[in-house]
Amino acid sequence: MDDRIQQYLAAQRDRHLEEMKEWLSIPSISALSEHKEDVRRAAQWAAEALQKAGIENVRVMPTKGHPVVYGEWLKAEGKPTVLIYGHYDVQPVDPLALWKTPPFEPDIREGKIFARGASDDKGQTFMHIKALEAILHTTGSLPLNFKFCIEGEEEIGSPNLDEFVEQNKELLAADVLVISDTPLLDRGKPAICTGLRGLCGLQIDVKGANSDLHSGLYGGAVQNPIHALVQILDSMRNEDGQITIEGFYDRVVPVSEEEREQYRALGYDEQKLKDELGVPEFFGEKGYSLLERTWTRPTLEINGIYGGFQGEGIKTVLPSEAHAKITCRLVPDQDPDEIIALIRNHIERHTPPGVTVTTQLFDRGKPFATPIDHPVIQAAARAYESVYRAPVAFTRMGGSIPVVATFDSVLNVPIVLMGFGLPNENFHAPNEHFHLENFDKGLLTLCTYWFELERTLAANAG
Amino acid sequence: MDDRIQQYLAAQRDRHLEEMKEWLSIPSISALSEHKEDVRRAAQWAAEALQKAGIENVRVMPTKGHPVVYGEWLKAEGKPTVLIYGHYDVQPVDPLALWKTPPFEPDIREGKIFARGASDDKGQTFMHIKALEAILHTTGSLPLNFKFCIEGEEEIGSPNLDEFVEQNKELLAADVLVISDTPLLDRGKPAICTGLRGLCGLQIDVKGANSDLHSGLYGGAVQNPIHALVQILDSMRNEDGQITIEGFYDRVVPVSEEEREQYRALGYDEQKLKDELGVPEFFGEKGYSLLERTWTRPTLEINGIYGGFQGEGIKTVLPSEAHAKITCRLVPDQDPDEIIALIRNHIERHTPPGVTVTTQLFDRGKPFATPIDHPVIQAAARAYESVYRAPVAFTRMGGSIPVVATFDSVLNVPIVLMGFGLPNENFHAPNEHFHLENFDKGLLTLCTYWFELERTLAANAG
Repeated sequence: MDDRIQQYLAAQRDRHLEEMKEWLSIPSISALSEHKEDVRRAAQWAAEALQKAGIENVRVMPTKGHPVVYGEWLKAEGKPTVLIYGHYDVQPVDPLALWKTPPFEPDIREGKIFARGASDDKGQTFMHIKALEAILHTTGSLPLNFKFCIEGEEEIGSPNLDEFVEQNKELLAADVLVISDTPLLDRGKPAICTGLRGLCGLQIDVKGANSDLHSGLYGGAVQNPIHALVQILDSMRNEDGQITIEGFYDRVVPVSEEEREQYRALGYDEQKLKDELGVPEFFGEKGYSLLERTWTRPTLEINGIYGGFQGEGIKTVLPSEAHAKITCRLVPDQDPDEIIALIRNHIERHTPPGVTVTTQLFDRGKPFATPIDHPVIQAAARAYESVYRAPVAFTRMGGSIPVVATFDSVLNVPIVLMGFGLPNENFHAPNEHFHLENFDKGLLTLCTYWFELERTLAANAG
Repeated sequence: MDDRIQQYLAAQRDRHLEEMKEWLSIPSISALSEHKEDVRRAAQWAAEALQKAGIENVRVMPTKGHPVVYGEWLKAEGKPTVLIYGHYDVQPVDPLALWKTPPFEPDIREGKIFARGASDDKGQTFMHIKALEAILHTTGSLPLNFKFCIEGEEEIGSPNLDEFVEQNKELLAADVLVISDTPLLDRGKPAICTGLRGLCGLQIDVKGANSDLHSGLYGGAVQNPIHALVQILDSMRNEDGQITIEGFYDRVVPVSEEEREQYRALGYDEQKLKDELGVPEFFGEKGYSLLERTWTRPTLEINGIYGGFQGEGIKTVLPSEAHAKITCRLVPDQDPDEIIALIRNHIERHTPPGVTVTTQLFDRGKPFATPIDHPVIQAAARAYESVYRAPVAFTRMGGSIPVVATFDSVLNVPIVLMGFGLPNENFHAPNEHFHLENFDKGLLTLCTYWFELERTLAANAG
């Protein structure tokens, strides 16, 4: 890689960080309708940033929900094309009281930038824009052709991206898809993610009497919707942490002994994580290690529950309704639609008398896995290693990027998940942040990768 | 009873209702600290109303919490003394959206007055004041001596009344205690309540990791506090509606076959109640009728639950905490302190790994039961029957008036629970109301009772 690129990045660092702060200041929370206009502003900001970097044909493309930002640079004649996917939407910020500085007033302290979206995923998407800006500005060209697809609905499960990708198959056609939305293994330890869990989720709504009742007058005779909900939810998991939805594990591909050995070799520091999270002990499916549980096993989690009196003190009420939100993380070859059907069957079979239960469907995403020895993966590993001076770990990830499965099936390209966040940077939680050390190293890694990838693809083509 | 009393009540009806509306307009919600000043205003209003009615030595007496309003009329020389207990505090009003007219803007329509506190218990306490006003105004005297004790913490379990009664034993000394805070059996069917369930309650707080986590990254490896809470709560009740807290039923006095027969004879219309409440079917402890379940059997109800994401849509979070509020209704001879200890033991034994659980104690009240054939009860029955022209049902009630047990043990007087509300008047729920038919008949019944009671006690003394 040309030395001038590194010099350019160093010289422009302050300006780049100021620009990134600007983007992070826009509260683009896709889940909340009152932020719709902010989400649109964040899309507009991304479009302008792409243009300033030298990306061409930039468009903010409407969908049924929040728009997709597209841009391209296709002047590397005869060279392969890279599609870069990122997202400009962010998670909600509650509980707001736990943020040390406001989520949309980015604050740099102790070598980190704190803001909602700092690592997930505005920060990392921003790096992709700036890496190409640096190469273009210093060399006047790029080693490969590039396309950007930056969406605004990742945090709500990308409900409209499937259709968008399907309808814009030609526009998005590429030879490699690169996504930076996954974490490093640890500080100074790069990782390429070769597997993602899928996702499906639903809300369970339990309805009893037509209004809240006095628990003294009716308690003991009228089914309590919270009790009913608790009973339904408790029937879904046993004391060994296994999900007891009938058929839930039927399609799970067992992890090979070889893969388990590889994970053990990573020497993951469970004690350190335990201290960081402040949990007395870990808890999960019996017979699996922590990494196996989060990377290779499916889960069912209750993300939220509410019903009855939640205020200060006590109210002796027998509430008329209760609600829970649950999501499952899925692994190959589980199918989200099938799992949803199994859950609904289970709920039906476990609904106690005296209440009616309905469900609302949320997003769905298929699980994904890619071979470690693919040349585009190996080229990414070499780029990381040249910058971080440390071996790359091939990991999986417990999270879901629903669109990965879509790209996988619609565009049929190899997918490289190379991210720069750290696992404890509070994605989805208060005080989300991003280490600037990985902002700097990440930019260099990306620039290095594009040249390395060009050579690798040329060699493989030849 | 003197005809002039009835004429006076008819003539003053409009003014009385206007005055009642004034009192109902004060949002004296004892559970919410922001309403502290409103609670004080409601106490002051009661004091002034007593004075206007001719009650003497009226005082607003401070406690550690909300004040008690005291007043007396002791000029019936040589006659027994009646202590009237009521409460001027009300339940919270959420969910506010379900009220057809605002809870603190009393509205009379279809022969009912709608407001929080209309029946529970400002409306009924107001009737006691007006009954004495009517007798005093028309006859210049009262047939018995009277004392009022109107408290402001009934809806939060009367935490300071025990101490108040203990410290003011002499001041409150009486021969009969009368409370109107219990419902009629049905429209036109008077009832005297001879048993109340006791109460104890606590909040369960479950804590996992020190902040909310991404359910993808940690789901399956870190205990989810909502799952843990659901597991703990579900372990407290089985599918037959029995409470499975070890030792919970040990001190329960079984209902006699005679008493069960008497309840069956009431011909309670279960279908009508089912329709009113809008439940598909009733649910409760196996082997007991609806009345037995609510009057004579103890319960454990979850009054509220909350944790994790409760907003619109989905948030794939593994929350750091979850909370529930539970209360038990107790029957003779269960002891609230002992039941709390049993629940805490149960929670300890059923807490799954990976979380810590703490509990916060709420109010407690002992269960109560009184003999049906007591002369003061029988006199009340005659008063009801002379006005309602219908036989009185001797019932129990599922609710709790914690102070009844205190009066029972500290003052050692017979207690008459004669109320005028209807079971479906939405105490503790949106659109609480009170039928004016029972406002009118109730006033006559009370006036009749005081003369009837004077005769009965004189006969018994002689």
